[in-house]
Amino acid sequence: FRMFDSNASGGVSNNWAAQPEGTETGETSSSAWHSGHPQAYQGPGAEDDEWDEEWDDVKSSGGYAESEAGEGGAINRGGAHGSSMKIALNKFPGFSKSGPELYLLSKQPAKGTRLPVYGGEAGPVWAYPDYQLDCVVADPKKGTKMYGLKSYIEYQVTPTTTNKPVNHRYKHFDWLYERLLDKYGSAIPIPCLPDKQVTGRFEEEFIKMRMERLQGWMTRMCRHPVVSSSEVFQLFLSYKDEKDWKMGKRKAEKDETVGVMIFSTIEPEGLPDLDLIEVEQKCEQFNRFTRAMDDGVKDLLTIGNEHWKRCTGPLPKEYQRIGKAFQNLSSVFNSSGYEGEATLTDALTAAGKTYEDIAQMVAEQPKKDLHFLMETNNEYKGLLGCFPDTIGVHKAAIEKVKEADKLVATGKITTSEKITMSKRASTMSYALQAEMIHFHTNRIYDYNKVMQQYLEQQVKFYEMIAEKLRHAHSQFTTM
Amino acid sequence: FRMFDSNASGGVSNNWAAQPEGTETGETSSSAWHSGHPQAYQGPGAEDDEWDEEWDDVKSSGGYAESEAGEGGAINRGGAHGSSMKIALNKFPGFSKSGPELYLLSKQPAKGTRLPVYGGEAGPVWAYPDYQLDCVVADPKKGTKMYGLKSYIEYQVTPTTTNKPVNHRYKHFDWLYERLLDKYGSAIPIPCLPDKQVTGRFEEEFIKMRMERLQGWMTRMCRHPVVSSSEVFQLFLSYKDEKDWKMGKRKAEKDETVGVMIFSTIEPEGLPDLDLIEVEQKCEQFNRFTRAMDDGVKDLLTIGNEHWKRCTGPLPKEYQRIGKAFQNLSSVFNSSGYEGEATLTDALTAAGKTYEDIAQMVAEQPKKDLHFLMETNNEYKGLLGCFPDTIGVHKAAIEKVKEADKLVATGKITTSEKITMSKRASTMSYALQAEMIHFHTNRIYDYNKVMQQYLEQQVKFYEMIAEKLRHAHSQFTTM
Repeated sequence: FRMFDSNASGGVSNNWAAQPEGTETGETSSSAWHSGHPQAYQGPGAEDDEWDEEWDDVKSSGGYAESEAGEGGAINRGGAHGSSMKIALNKFPGFSKSGPELYLLSKQPAKGTRLPVYGGEAGPVWAYPDYQLDCVVADPKKGTKMYGLKSYIEYQVTPTTTNKPVNHRYKHFDWLYERLLDKYGSAIPIPCLPDKQVTGRFEEEFIKMRMERLQGWMTRMCRHPVVSSSEVFQLFLSYKDEKDWKMGKRKAEKDETVGVMIFSTIEPEGLPDLDLIEVEQKCEQFNRFTRAMDDGVKDLLTIGNEHWKRCTGPLPKEYQRIGKAFQNLSSVFNSSGYEGEATLTDALTAAGKTYEDIAQMVAEQPKKDLHFLMETNNEYKGLLGCFPDTIGVHKAAIEKVKEADKLVATGKITTSEKITMSKRASTMSYALQAEMIHFHTNRIYDYNKVMQQYLEQQVKFYEMIAEKLRHAHSQFTTM
Repeated sequence: FRMFDSNASGGVSNNWAAQPEGTETGETSSSAWHSGHPQAYQGPGAEDDEWDEEWDDVKSSGGYAESEAGEGGAINRGGAHGSSMKIALNKFPGFSKSGPELYLLSKQPAKGTRLPVYGGEAGPVWAYPDYQLDCVVADPKKGTKMYGLKSYIEYQVTPTTTNKPVNHRYKHFDWLYERLLDKYGSAIPIPCLPDKQVTGRFEEEFIKMRMERLQGWMTRMCRHPVVSSSEVFQLFLSYKDEKDWKMGKRKAEKDETVGVMIFSTIEPEGLPDLDLIEVEQKCEQFNRFTRAMDDGVKDLLTIGNEHWKRCTGPLPKEYQRIGKAFQNLSSVFNSSGYEGEATLTDALTAAGKTYEDIAQMVAEQPKKDLHFLMETNNEYKGLLGCFPDTIGVHKAAIEKVKEADKLVATGKITTSEKITMSKRASTMSYALQAEMIHFHTNRIYDYNKVMQQYLEQQVKFYEMIAEKLRHAHSQFTTM
């Protein structure tokens, strides 16, 4: 894991100390998550790399302007490309252009890779690959362009499959995020990327933090069987050259199996159709759980944030003052004129210095343990923030299927179409259930890991303090 | 060490739960020293036990009304009983009735036990007894009188010499304090007693705290070779019966060798007379040191006080909230509907409970370590608060000796009287030096002891936290 390597080439420089203009307010990693996680579905800011257009030859369109309208809006924008969709829509004057009915009543054959869902031990599961993909995000390098007037950071992304590194800037990650959100967002929560930040973008601590979070995001995407095996994700991880990348980009941006249409590629294998009551119950259960966990995670983040502030602010200041008070008393004792108290004054000075050391340990500890607990919870806050929209799609579909009888009665749809709608709602439910099982297994893994890491570091911390104090204690005379 | 024994007899009851009227605002031990140490030389409050007159048949007089006038006033009030003193005073119209000249020009032979000062390794020293006196203050018992309308607390004081307990109320300690201050205050800093407190006097925590402080005060007095061997102190510790006590009280109150006259009993043994420059240098040195130590001790008390508040207030509250957040997350996880995460949720609950345990440990720790550090420094604050007056007596004496030449020139005193004055200033200096050496040896002993105790408890505290966290860590699955 090379962090600040000097492997400079071409326009890439490793001059980390040099701060570009406008970086005075750059935040450090210790405070970066205090600024809060970005809102779910925060659109790409125009201010980020707005001057850089070298790869921006094709800008994704596809009704993005509608993406901010209401629940589920952002992820249901696709699918309007197919003309048969438009016909289907005409049947329901109250139906929006982006609702789940696009899929429920679609007459088109499914396009793209099929996504099977199998019956697992704990319930429906995605098809998991034999080999778990992962990648390493490393070596952030500063590059310049426009004759040095503009600069950017490029990260090296190395997939464990090919072990061949590719370079990506934040804006490329953002492009990938948007493609994944477009394509899978209705079925799979795609967590947003780490915060955009304009000022202090080249500040060492900020870059380190962003890289750590991009790594976390990539690892999470790699772990997802559907996302990791997708064409666009594979392109991002292993494009051969710039031409390959550009062509792949254009293709991905033209993908029609986006929004609710992703459900058309899902194929429950050997699983019975679910009735609407069960579909609704599952949906409600997931809704309750994700909301409860969202509250729990936010609560922990608030408390952790306050604890961080205390551990890096008033607490070490107090230990430092205790340390100084002992040392001060020691130097007063030294001025007594009384011979033979060097043992006491030396021990008192050492005790004072020990408390100053402890002050520093206390202040630095959150970076060693609380940081990871906060990062994990921050990631989950981001993930959980996607569920209301994902679940919203399912709820909307359930409502549509509930209307089906009325639609048949009024001759708007045929009985056959009603059966199709119900079957498709069942398919959606299997997708949601598979996703929830994926979420649960990851959650169990992640929290088990982060809690172990946290407690292990906490043990070390308190043991080290005890050891330091034991040493300080030993310097006093035993009477 | 019996604390709340039920050894009730006569009017003494052990009904600790019963709170008398006016105890609603009683402070607890954890906050008792927050209210600060009493001012040095705070006079006895009329409100304490004012209703109890059984042993108040003889009230000490002796110019007490003048005791609050200016520097050194409180401790130089005695000695005006001798008629020859009054004659001496007439010689110096500018001299006050209570100044050190009472001793410097006294023609009376010394009365009372002589107090030798010897040349020790580190300087002049008091004569130390072969056996170090000590006593145990224990068994506070509530007594009632006036048919139960009034109640009081009686402490059992047992000297290690006789091992025969005597009973004393706070007012008796206060009486002893006044006698010692009267008699020795010019030469020896007599620390004031623990705070008087009217409301909540019978509250269990307050009584425990007062007893602990009375014990500390008594131990300090026992350790002093001059104080511990004095007749009044021996009376307090080992009077035979009420008659013995009453007679001893009257005798002590009539003692004429009080105030600056105590110096007349001091006899430097085999030590050369000191010239005034050396006397003045020593006095200045002690003054500088005690002031510097006073600052250091007060600084430590302020910091300790703040640390106490943090350790008993916001810090445990934060650990508790962390603990609750973990437990809350665990119960959310339990509601997931996903099978087989009991190991995680159990471990998470255990981790949460561990942090709640830690919260309680943090909150209770100050009583185990910081308390003693604070008490010792509080005692020293009291002791150091006596030095300005004690040193003031010496400074005033030095000024008088400096005037001696002028007095000889104007025929106010003879050359022989001038030589006596100088010799007596030298004696006073030996007393002060012996006292400083006593102070230094005690200080080294006390701080060595309290720092060891503090660090030992701190080590145990951090080790226990580490142990608890290690156990919490072990409950997670190793992956």
